[in-house]
Amino acid sequence: MRAGEIAELLGGRLEGDPEREISEAGDLRSAQSDQIAFAAGDEASRRAAESAAGCLLIGEDAPALNGRTVIRVPKPRKAFARVLQILHPPERPAPGVHSTAVIAETAVLGQGVSIGPHVTIVGAVRIGAGTVIEAGVSIGRGVTVGTGCWLHPRVVVYHDVEIGDRVILHAGCVLGADGFGYELDASGHEKFPQLGGVRIGNDVEIGANSCVDRAALAMTEIGDGSKLDNMVHVAHNCIIGKHVVIAAQTGLSGGCIIGDNALIGGQVGMGDKVRVEPGAILGSGCGVLPHKVVPAGEPYWGTPARPLREYLKGLAALGRLPKVLRELRALQARAKDGDAE
Amino acid sequence: MRAGEIAELLGGRLEGDPEREISEAGDLRSAQSDQIAFAAGDEASRRAAESAAGCLLIGEDAPALNGRTVIRVPKPRKAFARVLQILHPPERPAPGVHSTAVIAETAVLGQGVSIGPHVTIVGAVRIGAGTVIEAGVSIGRGVTVGTGCWLHPRVVVYHDVEIGDRVILHAGCVLGADGFGYELDASGHEKFPQLGGVRIGNDVEIGANSCVDRAALAMTEIGDGSKLDNMVHVAHNCIIGKHVVIAAQTGLSGGCIIGDNALIGGQVGMGDKVRVEPGAILGSGCGVLPHKVVPAGEPYWGTPARPLREYLKGLAALGRLPKVLRELRALQARAKDGDAE
Amino acid sequence: MRAGEIAELLGGRLEGDPEREISEAGDLRSAQSDQIAFAAGDEASRRAAESAAGCLLIGEDAPALNGRTVIRVPKPRKAFARVLQILHPPERPAPGVHSTAVIAETAVLGQGVSIGPHVTIVGAVRIGAGTVIEAGVSIGRGVTVGTGCWLHPRVVVYHDVEIGDRVILHAGCVLGADGFGYELDASGHEKFPQLGGVRIGNDVEIGANSCVDRAALAMTEIGDGSKLDNMVHVAHNCIIGKHVVIAAQTGLSGGCIIGDNALIGGQVGMGDKVRVEPGAILGSGCGVLPHKVVPAGEPYWGTPARPLREYLKGLAALGRLPKVLRELRALQARAKDGDAE
Repeated sequence: MRAGEIAELLGGRLEGDPEREISEAGDLRSAQSDQIAFAAGDEASRRAAESAAGCLLIGEDAPALNGRTVIRVPKPRKAFARVLQILHPPERPAPGVHSTAVIAETAVLGQGVSIGPHVTIVGAVRIGAGTVIEAGVSIGRGVTVGTGCWLHPRVVVYHDVEIGDRVILHAGCVLGADGFGYELDASGHEKFPQLGGVRIGNDVEIGANSCVDRAALAMTEIGDGSKLDNMVHVAHNCIIGKHVVIAAQTGLSGGCIIGDNALIGGQVGMGDKVRVEPGAILGSGCGVLPHKVVPAGEPYWGTPARPLREYLKGLAALGRLPKVLRELRALQARAKDGDAE
Repeated sequence: MRAGEIAELLGGRLEGDPEREISEAGDLRSAQSDQIAFAAGDEASRRAAESAAGCLLIGEDAPALNGRTVIRVPKPRKAFARVLQILHPPERPAPGVHSTAVIAETAVLGQGVSIGPHVTIVGAVRIGAGTVIEAGVSIGRGVTVGTGCWLHPRVVVYHDVEIGDRVILHAGCVLGADGFGYELDASGHEKFPQLGGVRIGNDVEIGANSCVDRAALAMTEIGDGSKLDNMVHVAHNCIIGKHVVIAAQTGLSGGCIIGDNALIGGQVGMGDKVRVEPGAILGSGCGVLPHKVVPAGEPYWGTPARPLREYLKGLAALGRLPKVLRELRALQARAKDGDAE
Repeated sequence: MRAGEIAELLGGRLEGDPEREISEAGDLRSAQSDQIAFAAGDEASRRAAESAAGCLLIGEDAPALNGRTVIRVPKPRKAFARVLQILHPPERPAPGVHSTAVIAETAVLGQGVSIGPHVTIVGAVRIGAGTVIEAGVSIGRGVTVGTGCWLHPRVVVYHDVEIGDRVILHAGCVLGADGFGYELDASGHEKFPQLGGVRIGNDVEIGANSCVDRAALAMTEIGDGSKLDNMVHVAHNCIIGKHVVIAAQTGLSGGCIIGDNALIGGQVGMGDKVRVEPGAILGSGCGVLPHKVVPAGEPYWGTPARPLREYLKGLAALGRLPKVLRELRALQARAKDGDAE
C-alpha cells in the first residue's frame, strides 16, 4: 500500500513521498524501509529521526523530519492501531463446520460461521453470522452467540449464556460456571443451586482463563464494550457496565456493581456487593471491603482502598515513622532531664 | 407443584392457599404469581409485602403477610436452596458414551455413567456409577472417580488421582499437575520429580480453572465436603481438611495444612507449610508468612496476617499518624521555646 | 536396583550393604525396606535413625547411622531428585499420532513424536523429535515446538509462537493470546492489534492455567531454564531472562524486563515496564509500581515493594504505634501541667 493511500485512509497530512510502498507495520526501533511506525510523545519524537522506517506516523505539532515520509495525525498511536488493522487483518479460518465437531441438530448456525475441530455444541444453541468457534470449544444448551464473534480454543460456555455481537473470548475462558454459594449447616455446606445466567454485551473482550460465573437467580452481566484481561474472576450476580476495563487477575465477589467507564487495575480484590461508580478508577492491587462504594474522581488505592492522596499521605507518614520515634524518645529524655533538674 | 406439597417437603407451616400452583423459583423482586421466593432478614421482610411472588418462604417469627400464601420455616434461605433443588434439578446428560470419546479398554465405567464428546480416558481408570464426564475432559492413567460426580467440560485430571463421590469439578480445573519443585544448581534448576498423587474426598466442589498439584512423594489432599472457588491454587503436599471453604484466587504454597471447617477468603496467599487450625477464619486478601500457625477464634486479617482487632488498631493508628506528626512538631516547638526562655 | 549401583550413579560413598535391593523412592517417614529416602538438615538427621527406609541418602558430614545402608553425598536432596528420575522415569506415551487428532498436511512432525487424542495442529507447524503432545492440545499456524517437549492436556498455543527444546507446558496453559491493549476513545476502547509473537527458550516449565500473552509488535520472551508456577500472568512484551523462577499467581504487566536468575514469589504484582535486575529477589505478595527498578542484593518486600529491612523497620514501627500514641499523650499532658504550674 502506498503512503499516500494510508494517509488518505487515516485522514492525515502526508509530508514526503506519497508513492513509497509500505507492506508492514513495525516498531520504531526495528522498522525497515517498507514498514510504517509511529512516534508519540517527546522521547519518541527524538528517536523518530533515527528510525529506518519508510513512513512515520507523527503528531500534528511534532518537529519536522526533513527528507522523511511522514503522516501527521492528531493521535499517532490510535492511527497506528488503525494501520495495523488495515495492513494486518486477523486471519479468519475459512467458514464451514469441521467434520470432527459435534453439533446438536437443534443448533442454528448463521451464515459464514466457522467451527473448528473437536468443538461440542449442545442443543438449542444459536450462533450468529460470521462467528469463529475455534478448536475444542464447548457450548452448552440454550446459549446464544451473536454475529462476528471469535471464540478461541478451549473456551467453555455453560448452558443459558447470552453473548452479544463482535465478542472475543480468549482461550480457556469459562462463562457460566456455578456461582460459589452454599448454605452452612451442622452437617456441612449445602449447595445453593445457581439457576441464573450470564449476559455478555457487544464488543466485549475477555482474556485467557478468565471466569464469569452464572447468577444464582438473575443474570451476571458485562456491558457493551467492556474489556477483561486474563484470569479475571467475576462472581455470580455482578453487573459490569459499559466500556469498563479490568486488568489481569482481578477478582470481583458476588453482586458487585461496576459503573460504565470504570478503570480497574490488576490484582484488585472486591468483597461482596461493592459498588464502583461510573468512571471511577481503582489502582492495581487494591482491596475493597464488602458493600463499599468507590466514587469517581480521584483514583482509589491500597487496602482498604482509599483516595490516592490519602493513601500517599499515610505512606509518607509511615516512612517518617522511625524518625518520629527517635524524636519522641528525645523529647521524653528532655522531659525526664527537666524532672531531674 | 402445589404450595401445600412444597410446605410438606420442607416441613414448614403454610399460611394461605395450599392449592396455589408453583412452577418455578424466583427472586423476591422479580418473581411472578407462579413463582416462589424467599425473604430472610429485616430488609427482605419489608420488601416481601411488595413482591408479586405466588408463594413466599419466610422466617418463623416474620411479620404476618395477610392475604398472601407463605411458608414459615426456621431458615428461609436454606429452605429456598432445597426448593431450588426440587423445582430445578440439574439436567443431567443422558447416560452412555459418546462415539467421539476415546476410552482405554482397561477403563471400568459404572452404571449410568455419561461420557461426552471428545473425552479422553487413559488406561486403568475407574468411573463410579452415575458420574457425568462432559465434553473434552481428559483423565490420566490410574485415576479413580467415585459415584455421582460431575466433571464439567475441559477438566484435566493427571494420572493417579483419587476422586471421591458426588464431587463437582468445574470447567478447566486441573488436578494433579506437577508440584513446583526444583533443585537449584550452578547450571540452573533441576526438576524435582513429583511422584505423589492427589486425593479428593466426597462432596467436594472445585471451581473453574482452579489447580490442585500432585504431591512430591505422598498425597495432596482435600477432605470431604470442602469447597474451592474459581482459580484457587493448591500446591503440592497441602492437606486440606473437611468442610473447608476457600474463595476465589487464593493460593496455598507447598505443604500447608488447613484444619476442618476453616473459612478462607479470596486472594489469600499462604507461604510454605502454613498451618490453619480447625475453624480458623482468614479474611480476603490476607498474606500468611511461611510456617505460621493461624489459630481459630478471632478472624485473621491483613499482611502479615494478624488478629482482626490488632489489624484494625494498627489501621486506626495509621489513620491518626498525620495528626500525631503535627502534635509532635508542636511539642518540639514548645520544648525549643522552653530552651529559648 | 542395588544400593551399590545407586551410589555409583550418584558418585556417592556407600556405607552398609551394597547388595540391598531398592525398587522405589519414598518419604523419610513412610519409606519401607525396599525404598530409598533422603535426610537433609539437622532435624532430618535426627529422624533418619527411626526411618524404616532400606537405604538413606545423607550428607557427607551427617552423623553415622550404624547398621544401616546409607549413601553419603554432598547434597542429599539433589541426589534424591536424581534417584527419582532414575527409579521413576516419567511414563511417556507411545510415539505415533492418534487417529482422532486433526493435523494440517503442512505440519512437520519429528521422529518419535507422540500426538494424543483430539489434538488440533493447524498449518505450517514444526514439532521436534520426541515431543509429547497430550489430549486436546491446540496449536496454531506457524508454531515451532522443539525436541523432547511435553505439552500436557488442553494446552493452547496461538499462532506464531516459538517453543525451544525440553519445554514442559502444564494443562490449560495458554501461550500467545492477545496482549491487553486498547486505544481509549470517546466511542469506547478500540483494540490495538497484537501482532507480535512469543518465544520460549529451552528447558522452560510453565504451570497449569498460566498465560503468556503475545507481544504487540515484537516478542514476549521467556529465557532458557526459567520456571513458572500455576496461574502466572505474563503480559505482552515482557522479557524474562534465563533461570528465572516465578511462583504461582504472580502477574507481570506489559513490558516488564526480568533479569537472569531472578527469584519472584507468588501473588506478586508488577506494573508496566518494571525492571527486575539479574539475581533480584521479590517476596511473595509484593507489589511493584510501574517503571520501578528492583535491584539485586537484599530481597524486596511489601507494597510498594522496598528492601526487606526497610519493610521490617516500617512494620516494627507500625507495631509500636499504639504505644507511641499513648506516650505522646503523656508528654502532652505533662506539657499542659507545666503550663498550669
